[in-house]
Amino acid sequence: MADGKIISIDGMGGDHAPRIVVEGLERFAKRRADLHFLLHGDEAQLKVLLASAPTAAPRTTIRHTEKMIAMDAKPSEAMRRGKGSSMWNAIEAVKAGEAIAAVSAGNTGALMAQSMLILKKVEGLERPALAASWPTRTGVCAMLDLGADIAATAEQLVEFAIMGQAFARVVNGVANPRVALLNIGSEELKGHESIREAARLIRASNLTMDFRGYIEADKIGFGEVDVVVADGFTGNVALKTAEGIAKMMSDMLKEALKSGPLSTLGALLAMPALKKFRARLDPRKVNGAVFLGLNGVVVKSHGGTDAVGFEHAISVAAGMGESHFRTEVEDNLKRLTISMAQIATAAPASQEVAK
Amino acid sequence: MADGKIISIDGMGGDHAPRIVVEGLERFAKRRADLHFLLHGDEAQLKVLLASAPTAAPRTTIRHTEKMIAMDAKPSEAMRRGKGSSMWNAIEAVKAGEAIAAVSAGNTGALMAQSMLILKKVEGLERPALAASWPTRTGVCAMLDLGADIAATAEQLVEFAIMGQAFARVVNGVANPRVALLNIGSEELKGHESIREAARLIRASNLTMDFRGYIEADKIGFGEVDVVVADGFTGNVALKTAEGIAKMMSDMLKEALKSGPLSTLGALLAMPALKKFRARLDPRKVNGAVFLGLNGVVVKSHGGTDAVGFEHAISVAAGMGESHFRTEVEDNLKRLTISMAQIATAAPASQEVAK
Repeated sequence: MADGKIISIDGMGGDHAPRIVVEGLERFAKRRADLHFLLHGDEAQLKVLLASAPTAAPRTTIRHTEKMIAMDAKPSEAMRRGKGSSMWNAIEAVKAGEAIAAVSAGNTGALMAQSMLILKKVEGLERPALAASWPTRTGVCAMLDLGADIAATAEQLVEFAIMGQAFARVVNGVANPRVALLNIGSEELKGHESIREAARLIRASNLTMDFRGYIEADKIGFGEVDVVVADGFTGNVALKTAEGIAKMMSDMLKEALKSGPLSTLGALLAMPALKKFRARLDPRKVNGAVFLGLNGVVVKSHGGTDAVGFEHAISVAAGMGESHFRTEVEDNLKRLTISMAQIATAAPASQEVAK
Repeated sequence: MADGKIISIDGMGGDHAPRIVVEGLERFAKRRADLHFLLHGDEAQLKVLLASAPTAAPRTTIRHTEKMIAMDAKPSEAMRRGKGSSMWNAIEAVKAGEAIAAVSAGNTGALMAQSMLILKKVEGLERPALAASWPTRTGVCAMLDLGADIAATAEQLVEFAIMGQAFARVVNGVANPRVALLNIGSEELKGHESIREAARLIRASNLTMDFRGYIEADKIGFGEVDVVVADGFTGNVALKTAEGIAKMMSDMLKEALKSGPLSTLGALLAMPALKKFRARLDPRKVNGAVFLGLNGVVVKSHGGTDAVGFEHAISVAAGMGESHFRTEVEDNLKRLTISMAQIATAAPASQEVAK
């Protein structure tokens, strides 16, 4: 195991763990022959499952623990009693430098709390954020914060923009990501003061960023920007609204297409097209929210996902773990700090000129 | 015109005005033979259009004005220079007691600003809100605030809950609406303090309300609640996200079903089912946001809607104008005031008990 990079996996987190975890791992192992895995959880259960995962098994080391975090555990509980759990150990392997990234489909609040505690924030950063991809007409768009915290100051929104830009490069492969702030109107005067101030800060800074101003939520799907920045409350509401509407529409479509013999026949004929349609919007293909801004990579898989979704979450973890994400963010944070200092010095003078 | 109730209509507001306004009016007039209409705008244009609207024409009085509010006008501009415009006059007919409600597909900000100025807030109410219906699996759900303001205190959220409840009764015909606050988790500890405080206030009050606590945005479509309450920024983001995803999915579905001869044949066979599917999600059928909390009814139609959508907006205006909405809200506001006074008196004692 010494010569390959390692991904650390919480074997017991998620609604259908450990089964879908090992199945997802097997799928991923087939695509990446060079990576190794640390699998944390109940050895007996995991061994049985790994017996049916011939590609992953030779490259997987099980780290036994009986302790696991309940899906409905409160973050405070996960902090107090989480030590030694499969989730905790998965993160600690990153902290110890054994693994390049950790993945868990367990309780979000617990994962964030433990990750913060074990890995700590990147120095110079005010607040971490949860980022994920959002399907658009043309591909995907990175969105953050999706709920690491409920509010964000202007400075924190700028940090999110910096991290989102690096995320879009590293995870979604966009060379020069277009970044926008989520707002309720494109006019300069609309929205919370923190958002307007963040826009001013980005424009006044010397960040290398293709900043596109504000974006309204109904325009995200057009694919005109690659990164959408919001506070965690707003980002979470937008993400869940999108998930809810997409699920409702696809359920209603299924019902409609089964509503009579002609419709069913029609649906059969159109099946390949309908499958392509569903594949483009498959939430499993965008599974894997990354907890950005920590000294180490932690990826949160959707708790209810299946093997395909978990495979994608591991893939996001690998992409992040192997990338220059951290250096890129740190460079930009330094640039931001310098800019802010310059703005602070220059402000009185420029205000006078304005008068 | 003396014996019928009157709806006041801004003939010039909207992307496709005045054409779709008059077409929508004609459609609505066919359904309601008892109502009359005041149509504000350019007489020459409106006369020509009314000539092709034989049902509406005999019951429509044109009020000429050359002035109109541009779709991209700023609210401040609409306030300063709006007087005498078709929008302004439409609202003023409500203020004068001539009409039971006003409808406009014009600029939202201008309409809200002018409505506030002309009709004033209901006494005892802190802040008006914009409400509209949202399609669910089982019917519709009322949602507010959709952007009358960007923030809301706990007390204002409670007011929104009261107005939303009355709206669901009057516009959506729900006898006993289930009300919930939009939040990012169902746990009591999540979300902004204002939301948690609003939940406490509602529970502690003697409002007659079927209050269901918090709802997450992905659950709205399940039809488990009839009213969703949020601050205007969050509500607007959720609404626009939903619109954006719905539009993207239906566009992608159309593309998919035209992607080859078999799919096209399949789509043809499944056409009635697909039409039913689209009809259930037709945004025109839920068109018409009501500006709640003013001394008079003002309905905002989507600016880009067509005749079917505008017809629905007039129908919402008629429903609101003919209802006991105002009495109901005022009764509940009084109950709230009494409750708050009681809570304020009782609070020190109950806090001691808690210790």
